[in-house]
Amino acid sequence: MTPQPSERPPSAEPTVIGAEPLRQIVTGVLTGNGLERAQAETVAEILVDADLRGVHTHGVARLQMYVDRLMRNMVNRHPQIRTVADTGSLVMLDGDNGMGFVVASRATNIAIERATSHGVGWVTVTRSNHFGAAAYYVEACARRGLIGIAISNGPPVMAPTGSSEPYFGANPLGVGLPCPGDPIVLDMATTVVAQGHILLAAAAGRSIPLGWALDASGQPTTDPKTALEGVLLPFGAHKGSGIALMIEALTGVLGAASFGAHVGSMIKNPDRPQDVSHALIALSLAAVPGAAEGFASRLDGMVTEIRSLTPARGADRILMPGEKEHELRRERLRNGIPLEASTWKRLVELQGSSTTEAR
Amino acid sequence: MTPQPSERPPSAEPTVIGAEPLRQIVTGVLTGNGLERAQAETVAEILVDADLRGVHTHGVARLQMYVDRLMRNMVNRHPQIRTVADTGSLVMLDGDNGMGFVVASRATNIAIERATSHGVGWVTVTRSNHFGAAAYYVEACARRGLIGIAISNGPPVMAPTGSSEPYFGANPLGVGLPCPGDPIVLDMATTVVAQGHILLAAAAGRSIPLGWALDASGQPTTDPKTALEGVLLPFGAHKGSGIALMIEALTGVLGAASFGAHVGSMIKNPDRPQDVSHALIALSLAAVPGAAEGFASRLDGMVTEIRSLTPARGADRILMPGEKEHELRRERLRNGIPLEASTWKRLVELQGSSTTEAR
Repeated sequence: MTPQPSERPPSAEPTVIGAEPLRQIVTGVLTGNGLERAQAETVAEILVDADLRGVHTHGVARLQMYVDRLMRNMVNRHPQIRTVADTGSLVMLDGDNGMGFVVASRATNIAIERATSHGVGWVTVTRSNHFGAAAYYVEACARRGLIGIAISNGPPVMAPTGSSEPYFGANPLGVGLPCPGDPIVLDMATTVVAQGHILLAAAAGRSIPLGWALDASGQPTTDPKTALEGVLLPFGAHKGSGIALMIEALTGVLGAASFGAHVGSMIKNPDRPQDVSHALIALSLAAVPGAAEGFASRLDGMVTEIRSLTPARGADRILMPGEKEHELRRERLRNGIPLEASTWKRLVELQGSSTTEAR
Repeated sequence: MTPQPSERPPSAEPTVIGAEPLRQIVTGVLTGNGLERAQAETVAEILVDADLRGVHTHGVARLQMYVDRLMRNMVNRHPQIRTVADTGSLVMLDGDNGMGFVVASRATNIAIERATSHGVGWVTVTRSNHFGAAAYYVEACARRGLIGIAISNGPPVMAPTGSSEPYFGANPLGVGLPCPGDPIVLDMATTVVAQGHILLAAAAGRSIPLGWALDASGQPTTDPKTALEGVLLPFGAHKGSGIALMIEALTGVLGAASFGAHVGSMIKNPDRPQDVSHALIALSLAAVPGAAEGFASRLDGMVTEIRSLTPARGADRILMPGEKEHELRRERLRNGIPLEASTWKRLVELQGSSTTEAR
């Protein structure tokens, strides 16, 4: 049953809500804006999973943005997602401008299916939209016993090393490894930080460390507002920039979709599709006799060894990629998800307006 | 004809030598140590290519190390490289403790062959040795019109984020993209810098920047000698550490070979095989109708756009990954390769001793 958000007045305190009622609110808002129920549920599942994992920059706080795109008909509510090329292990998928979450979920399923039959499944996706957190797709692979890799391009926010002008997207890299207990899940932007962190700093009136961004004139800045008018820097200097370039090439360029500065921004380009491109890659260990069990148990051995290394000064324990997020998800599945007052307020408003429209 | 290095007495000045005579010296030294000619030529080709590209940390300066391994019978001169699992696009290859260059070259050829027939060829290699510069293998893919990716683990030199103890190797990532003119070739260690740079600084009596390494007690250091007793740091902090972990998992763990601290060092473990693991991955654009030409021309378009971006302060031009190395190779193919006096001296000595042995 959908809860009644209007009974919970917005306040400065975070609102704590269960994952399932939150999914229902998001699903309701999206179906109220004309999205088919199955698609709306996919989007809700992935957004709420990000909030469960504490990655609020990719959670329901973004719902307004996706709704705006739907209302402007900049996203196709009824995409005919289709295979445009297929060599067995390599598939080119046309997302037909559908919701990125929906297109990437389909691509993940195809990658898993092809990996199962061919060992490797590599799905290059064109004409898609923002797919949320890469972690979701690669964790889905890992929980089914496969190694998963997800990359995407995105609207230009990052300056290639040597330049002060935005060209690459935040170009995330996700990798999921099946492991006893929780999978290991890496999900990282190839910028020093995701733009969401700069937005949060700007909203909170905090400064940002030097090295995150340049201002519009190409000078390093600690002011988040100035940074938002400028450009993000790649992580790890020229090495991160090189990886961002490779991701751009393996997504937009390979997929014959938009690349670099041509990728549409959900905010800055309200009147055209994003034309984002992803790649979803899966490796099946089950395809190799005995490999699946062996891999997970050896990986578990490696994790145990890493945890027992001498800790660095100031570090109390050595974390695996995704470990904190798994712990947070377990805690929040028990105790609910704390949402910022402003996020909750916007959800309530969205629910109100979409209900009106759905009438 | 092999040149007579003894006619060129060692001096403080670099010795300039052509690529082909240098290859012949290296081949001669290796065959003099019992390596089959075809294998010796492969090693020589790859080492000299690194010197042509200016990557002397991976060039003939290392020949002594490889010869030592051969002389101690720590590398198998007659490996039976064989496929231990094969699902079509995913191949597990046992390198039988052969020279890493030879094993990785074979793996690259299999990856290309499988990519050509299946779209993707992913070859996981176990029981190998140091393969030199990843650039060589991915450039070979790119020059044949395929996208190439190469990763490897290696002896423990890097502390995972949160630790001050060496566990991961320098775990390089190489990516090659076919492009009109020169391919784009990324080749990077996942440490801030390759250990070779710290060795060079130590030899030259130069200090190193903070952030490259920790000393044996886990303190940041600028002294290269102290750094060599300590541990290298990952590039890009926890993000680089996460990528190094993923490379370790996709090589040693996936290949059921040694991983982490168990991988043998050529220097510190003179009495046991390295048991290094790689993955060589190729993507065939020819497998998708029209994709190959389209990809290269779109990539060329992206490169042109990136070059014309506003340069950063202090940058005179925006370089593509591998661009400087391509330029240097062209210049050195014309004018010869300058080798440091000490490198040349060691080559001369190696040539003398291997000739003696071959008698």
